[in-house]
Amino acid sequence: MTARELEARYRQYINCLNDRRLDELDQFVHEELIYNDNPMSRRDYRDLISGDIAAIPDLFFKIGLLVADDRHVACRLDFHCTPTASFLGLQPNGKAVTFSEHVFYRFRNGKIGQVWSLIDKASLAAQLTK
Amino acid sequence: MTARELEARYRQYINCLNDRRLDELDQFVHEELIYNDNPMSRRDYRDLISGDIAAIPDLFFKIGLLVADDRHVACRLDFHCTPTASFLGLQPNGKAVTFSEHVFYRFRNGKIGQVWSLIDKASLAAQLTK
Repeated sequence: MTARELEARYRQYINCLNDRRLDELDQFVHEELIYNDNPMSRRDYRDLISGDIAAIPDLFFKIGLLVADDRHVACRLDFHCTPTASFLGLQPNGKAVTFSEHVFYRFRNGKIGQVWSLIDKASLAAQLTK
Repeated sequence: MTARELEARYRQYINCLNDRRLDELDQFVHEELIYNDNPMSRRDYRDLISGDIAAIPDLFFKIGLLVADDRHVACRLDFHCTPTASFLGLQPNGKAVTFSEHVFYRFRNGKIGQVWSLIDKASLAAQLTK
């Protein structure tokens, strides 16, 4: 796929998450993937996202910056949301938080096969312990 | 510049840092830039990097993954180094640490004009407090 096609595909994936159509993840994610250097099944990946959504019902994936080549997408995702349960081991305080994720994806045959994610947990922790 | 040219330019910039040729930063960085949403002068940016190098004499910027388009570079930088002074507010313990930075750069006329950086501080803290 070209960089432009991969970007379009990634935007469909993000829409899928924001629409909570997790049943359709098989269109975007391989059955087996590597997540932050750990092997993971698509089911595990779905559970990870489901868990995040359960902890943060208003979780919305907003693409702040996107860079693509013919194999990778790098994205800065901006979040503004209100956790209602523990997230990344941090307890909610009822207030909205703003934080970012910098995430790289390697695609294979149009589907995500590897993910490297970094979330700004320090910023999140600072907001949740105020 | 094309994505390929921008990638080559970025690799020159990383070599410049690894060779400690900070006097040559003017070739790669605008006099005024935005760093994590804050305005910063090239002098401030140089001081930031100098400070990191002072705290971590063996700091080596290793490109783990690089994605470029005609305006941006996104890079996962892998570090394996031994802090000898406080870094990101964390005290050294004499041991080597391994951590990553996920960083996006926006170029203008071949020079860095904006940076969004996320460092895996949680991992670093876990290693330094062992």
